[in-house]
Amino acid sequence: MSMESKKGAPVGVFDSGVGGLTVVREIIRQLPDENIVYFGDTARVPYGSKSQKTVIRFSEQIIRFLKTKQVKAIVIACNTASALALDIVREEFDVPILGVVAPGARAAVKATRNRKIGVVGTDATVRSGVYTKVIQGIDPQIRVIEKACPLFVPLVEEGFKEHEVTREIIEYYLESLRATDIDAMILGCTHYPLLRSRIREYMGKEIQIVNPAYETAIDLKTLLEDQDMANKGSDPAGSRYEFYVSDTADKFRQFANTVMPFDVPETNVVNIESY
Amino acid sequence: MSMESKKGAPVGVFDSGVGGLTVVREIIRQLPDENIVYFGDTARVPYGSKSQKTVIRFSEQIIRFLKTKQVKAIVIACNTASALALDIVREEFDVPILGVVAPGARAAVKATRNRKIGVVGTDATVRSGVYTKVIQGIDPQIRVIEKACPLFVPLVEEGFKEHEVTREIIEYYLESLRATDIDAMILGCTHYPLLRSRIREYMGKEIQIVNPAYETAIDLKTLLEDQDMANKGSDPAGSRYEFYVSDTADKFRQFANTVMPFDVPETNVVNIESY
Repeated sequence: MSMESKKGAPVGVFDSGVGGLTVVREIIRQLPDENIVYFGDTARVPYGSKSQKTVIRFSEQIIRFLKTKQVKAIVIACNTASALALDIVREEFDVPILGVVAPGARAAVKATRNRKIGVVGTDATVRSGVYTKVIQGIDPQIRVIEKACPLFVPLVEEGFKEHEVTREIIEYYLESLRATDIDAMILGCTHYPLLRSRIREYMGKEIQIVNPAYETAIDLKTLLEDQDMANKGSDPAGSRYEFYVSDTADKFRQFANTVMPFDVPETNVVNIESY
Repeated sequence: MSMESKKGAPVGVFDSGVGGLTVVREIIRQLPDENIVYFGDTARVPYGSKSQKTVIRFSEQIIRFLKTKQVKAIVIACNTASALALDIVREEFDVPILGVVAPGARAAVKATRNRKIGVVGTDATVRSGVYTKVIQGIDPQIRVIEKACPLFVPLVEEGFKEHEVTREIIEYYLESLRATDIDAMILGCTHYPLLRSRIREYMGKEIQIVNPAYETAIDLKTLLEDQDMANKGSDPAGSRYEFYVSDTADKFRQFANTVMPFDVPETNVVNIESY
């Protein structure tokens, strides 16, 4: 690919399902001239309760698919896949790949004053301990308390965001975390920003809530500029956004239309297992 | 296969994950001499929020895998796959295949006195309307009220069976059903029997709760006897039970050990996408 065609090439973004759209939203906000190809693995969602080996295999298939779209860089907009697969797939593929864990960790390190950080995520992410490793890699003095909240994803997916039981489930998971003196907290799963106001309500305003999406878009911007791949001078027709899923698109589109700043026009179904 | 080797051949049972073990438990109880090969699709669980096309493809792969184990019959111990895929796969494969919907429907028709039946299940099962079709195929005068309860599966999987929020979520889903005068109710998802006592507590003792697993085992018995395939005269070493999953076995075994009347000794991981 020539340098010019690389600039116009899309950025690939993937997630186990719809949650990664919260990262896409942030990329669009910060990098409005970039074209984006999104893949949501709706046939095999969720990843958060599955093994490393399986999450690596799924991620490899998706990256092979995204490469057929000539992506110039890939963002793993899924904490579980970032936690379990990023190091492996970075070695395997000749395209720059970013995850959401390192940006989220860095943002939390900036945010904390008392060097005590809480992390909430899926079972798999928390079991991996990757947030603690990355945060303590930046500052070994920081204390990190991680807590898995496996019901948060189905609550969001089933539209329970505003329901009373959501407050009780938040309390069930976060009571022990609230009893500590953490002053920053990472939403270590792309679904969780959709519960942000409920979590903030419970945890109190003194705790800084960190959404890795914002920092991830900054990382992407830096990467594209450093490698001279940023798409400057926007297309008069506007940037192109393509959405692919592994299972039917109805629920995905419905959800996407609540997250994205525009109506998602069409979504294509891909047999991801064949990649 | 000769008739004798067919008698000793195992019965294949599959589910999207662990829920189908409630059906295996019932088959073991009623047909203690049968050998069983179980497959749980733990890499792609759950099925209940996915499309018909995807559930058919997953079911086909699993049946191809079970056929490599020389199964003499297959039980789809998953309501969603029974609802969406049974008719299709029965046409495609030369092995007898049973689902859980017809047995469950028949049991409810027997149980109701006032001809009003409630059905709870996954989104996909309820959207298919298959329980209503099958029940009204037996007796067109019966009124059927179906209700999707998508959070029940994650509640069971995350160990919330006894938690207070489970009562509130049961109320959220079943309030409208309790306000009707149904006198029988089908647990149309293999996870739901694990919430049976909580559901009974909420719905009241007057309502007969039907678990399709019991009737499914009867159907299997009838099928094996009719086709002269029943395994009579038990092996002195005991019947053989083999367990396969598509993702790591730890969580599966942990769960299996709470459902099965014996400790599940080992579980094998299969790359199901290659079938």
